[in-house]
Amino acid sequence: MTASCTASLGFTPVIGVALGPWNHSYRAIMETGECVLSIPTVDMMETVVDVGNCSGDSVDKFKRFGLTPLPSDKVATPLIAESLGNVECVVREYPTDNGLYLFVLEGVKAWSNPDREERRTFHAVGDGTFVMDGETVNLRHKMTKWEDCI
Amino acid sequence: MTASCTASLGFTPVIGVALGPWNHSYRAIMETGECVLSIPTVDMMETVVDVGNCSGDSVDKFKRFGLTPLPSDKVATPLIAESLGNVECVVREYPTDNGLYLFVLEGVKAWSNPDREERRTFHAVGDGTFVMDGETVNLRHKMTKWEDCI
Repeated sequence: MTASCTASLGFTPVIGVALGPWNHSYRAIMETGECVLSIPTVDMMETVVDVGNCSGDSVDKFKRFGLTPLPSDKVATPLIAESLGNVECVVREYPTDNGLYLFVLEGVKAWSNPDREERRTFHAVGDGTFVMDGETVNLRHKMTKWEDCI
Repeated sequence: MTASCTASLGFTPVIGVALGPWNHSYRAIMETGECVLSIPTVDMMETVVDVGNCSGDSVDKFKRFGLTPLPSDKVATPLIAESLGNVECVVREYPTDNGLYLFVLEGVKAWSNPDREERRTFHAVGDGTFVMDGETVNLRHKMTKWEDCI
């Protein structure tokens, strides 16, 4: 599925993902306790939107969108070969009954695709528009308080 | 403070923010139950990093960094006049004892600064580099399943 409500939750590989229980993927994660977070690039933007506008209940999304599954190492969920990166995750905390549907995931193995020439990702604004990555600025020299973390 | 571990948690104005209890702001939010999320632009990038590399325990950050406080409407915390936008928030859920330090905030009033010419924001990669917003792509016509949400 396409998920835009995601966040790193600190300096360890703990990631929050908010998914509605009306999603096929919500039920799959509840059943298996695991998933793969796959990081697409700007040249996959239209596919990403199309993936988010149909349901795994009735569509084999790998097949329909020409994506290539690759075996993971620590979980049964496949990686997506076309993505820039993939993070194998297990569920650390399931949604509670507070109406938020927030999964807290623990990344257990990360994959990066060094052969990808296009490395820009993109961000959902929430209104059907998406902002592509622009220029990267290195401000490491100013991160005096966080030297040990970066 | 500067916070990079943030996420929209759905289609309502519910926002997750992970903060360490070692932060002055963590203690302030615990005490007051409210805060303002302020959205800076790329021309404020160096200030944002500097703000994150000192503590409100010993520094008046508005004064040191030449930021202008403006009165909020629903909370006591001030807005930042220089930002592109500000969201007044109250705490909906406090961190539990699960080691995550995740606040769930409810936005109660949002402000946008229409006079700002620079409207590009930026994203912390986590390694001391920051990615500036690039081109915006409109894919609303493909959001068939989510027409009511966008």
